[in-house]
Amino acid sequence: MALIVQKYGGTSVGSVERIQAVAKKIKAFADNGDQLVVSVSAMSGETNRMTALAKDVQETPSLREMDVLLTTGEQVTISLLSMALQQLGCDAISYTGSQVRITTDSEHGKARIKSIDDHRIRESLEAGKVVVVAGFQGVDEDGHITTLGRGGSDTTAVALAAALNADECQIYTDVDGVYTADPRIEPKARKMNTVSYEEMLEMASLGSKVLQIRSVEFASKYKVPLRVLSSLIDNPVGTLITSEENIMEQAIISGIAHNIDEAKLSLIGVPDEPGIAYKILKPISEANIEVDMIVQSVSAREGLTNFAFTVHRNDFDKAQAILQSICDELSAMGVQTDDKVVKVSLVGIGMRSHAGIATQMFKVLHQENINIQMISTSEIKISVVIDEKYLELAVRSLHNAFELDKE
Amino acid sequence: MALIVQKYGGTSVGSVERIQAVAKKIKAFADNGDQLVVSVSAMSGETNRMTALAKDVQETPSLREMDVLLTTGEQVTISLLSMALQQLGCDAISYTGSQVRITTDSEHGKARIKSIDDHRIRESLEAGKVVVVAGFQGVDEDGHITTLGRGGSDTTAVALAAALNADECQIYTDVDGVYTADPRIEPKARKMNTVSYEEMLEMASLGSKVLQIRSVEFASKYKVPLRVLSSLIDNPVGTLITSEENIMEQAIISGIAHNIDEAKLSLIGVPDEPGIAYKILKPISEANIEVDMIVQSVSAREGLTNFAFTVHRNDFDKAQAILQSICDELSAMGVQTDDKVVKVSLVGIGMRSHAGIATQMFKVLHQENINIQMISTSEIKISVVIDEKYLELAVRSLHNAFELDKE
Repeated sequence: MALIVQKYGGTSVGSVERIQAVAKKIKAFADNGDQLVVSVSAMSGETNRMTALAKDVQETPSLREMDVLLTTGEQVTISLLSMALQQLGCDAISYTGSQVRITTDSEHGKARIKSIDDHRIRESLEAGKVVVVAGFQGVDEDGHITTLGRGGSDTTAVALAAALNADECQIYTDVDGVYTADPRIEPKARKMNTVSYEEMLEMASLGSKVLQIRSVEFASKYKVPLRVLSSLIDNPVGTLITSEENIMEQAIISGIAHNIDEAKLSLIGVPDEPGIAYKILKPISEANIEVDMIVQSVSAREGLTNFAFTVHRNDFDKAQAILQSICDELSAMGVQTDDKVVKVSLVGIGMRSHAGIATQMFKVLHQENINIQMISTSEIKISVVIDEKYLELAVRSLHNAFELDKE
Repeated sequence: MALIVQKYGGTSVGSVERIQAVAKKIKAFADNGDQLVVSVSAMSGETNRMTALAKDVQETPSLREMDVLLTTGEQVTISLLSMALQQLGCDAISYTGSQVRITTDSEHGKARIKSIDDHRIRESLEAGKVVVVAGFQGVDEDGHITTLGRGGSDTTAVALAAALNADECQIYTDVDGVYTADPRIEPKARKMNTVSYEEMLEMASLGSKVLQIRSVEFASKYKVPLRVLSSLIDNPVGTLITSEENIMEQAIISGIAHNIDEAKLSLIGVPDEPGIAYKILKPISEANIEVDMIVQSVSAREGLTNFAFTVHRNDFDKAQAILQSICDELSAMGVQTDDKVVKVSLVGIGMRSHAGIATQMFKVLHQENINIQMISTSEIKISVVIDEKYLELAVRSLHNAFELDKE
């Protein structure tokens, strides 16, 4: 008998029929003798519908009241799913975030979980019930309703699994696992059976959309075995995300991530003096723009340096304007920008003990005549920024060169 | 500066435009310096929509989960109304029943309020906010979400007014007050400025649909001045329901109530022996049928009695079957039934000190050739059951005879 936490997203519970299908899946586990805690999202479309209502009423909807409004979405799902389970003869009970009690900080719209009281869930499990918990929501210490922000249902599931010391946390989604590359770009991409938290974290932050970064961080911190699997097929296996030491044979390279939302900005010919990075990045961060890669390089002229960084494409215009305004101030020669770039990254824990991966990567890109504009490395990943027209070519040639299609 | 509790029903908040209109009304009070606590229902249509969803999922939806589901309705309204108030520059904050904390017993679907913690509401009022509370809902002592049943939003408002010792509880509805008779039947019916709790209670239980009985009981018990008024017009006056001693000049008859949902059943020629009423009514109450009027009369044959009672027309078939089945058992002569009857009642506190009202009532009905089938009286009301075809005639001639159109 295992204690399993499962999470079903908005599409999986998007209609009465889908809720009934999810109930059947859950019942199969319960019939198998497993104890089940299920975290669900709002039915797909509901969040957008409610957001539109709010905007009809208030120009900039109050964050606190928005949370009161949006949390009704999961509350509807938990009650309907519990009813669907009972209809199948599977005893079930629903809890909102506030009932569980999932305590968060007070940052409405993007709250962070501080603690989970597990006693009600345990009581219900011991009474033989499937426990259905509203994802994405909690309450702060004063009892105000909060939400964890988009993707927060994953985090709820992982946090529940950690609090309950569950045997596994299963995230049901519309993909059937984590792939060595995006299968839409590299048809030979292979589904991985296991991947380490660290690699998954890098992949999530590098643009893989399978899991939210925060849920992986949480799983890693509390060593929750996390499985991504498809809600669309029967008996899925998916990909297990776990500690490095639990992975028998670690590949050198696990996969290739890419991010198409990048834009590059450079300040050319800045006097090379202490504090220059701070002077450039301070106004950027004050404008609430997140910077991804940062590269400072030597300029052709002595005593000068070039300073380049990437931001999300949504922030491109704002960042460009800021850079133009500080160009004179810093006596720089000029601003260069490019919003037609992408980032391609190799991720693998094996890199730590294998030298020469970077060289091999650059060689492959060179052979394909792909110019590398920026490079950034960590212990377990190498990222390059390249022209967006080379995206598919880069991913496919790297996938092939590192033989990622083979186990 | 007064502390006012207001209640707006589902129709008043049935769309974004109506929510905005309600916000404007509330703001006018706030601008006047009053402190406001507003209890609201779910947007009209939402409760039916959710009930249909639940029935798609579970044949007989779990009462507990039904409450989890339905309470999202008011939660949506409180957030949207708070946003609409903020948009008008009127500071507002929403609370669910569970946040307030409105503690109820554990009877899902028809819970009763046990206590209300007023400290959060008072804090928010003192901070200058309009407090918007979800009507119809609470939590039991174990934190399970409960609902008060249909019309429960009125009860929430009155209970809040009692807990806060409010100056007035205003129930906004689609009628502009309490009338001396149903204006659809008697066009000369007059809106009352004041009416006592006791009279209102009788009128509610006799079929007047203006207020739910439980909310009037609550108001009476805690001496909450209760005002019914129209949400459709500006500056409405409505009808004040208050203690008898606050009403300067008490009319002998306040109004005429009627109930068209009655059905009459009689067991004819039952042996007149002790325990006969019990033997007849036990199986009826075991079938969960509520009995309204009961009359035991002497039969034409000595030693025999006739036993008649009325039930709601929805229960007519069921009651008839039960009566048939016990007819032999009790050696009765037969069963007589009539589901084409109505009840017409005269209500007035003045009856206590004025003899002869009943006589006068019977005289009026006799003059119109209306046959009285059953009579039941209390200290402040006289009810008669008559053929439904005489309903309008009876109401109008009584209204005229007792000069209810005059102040």
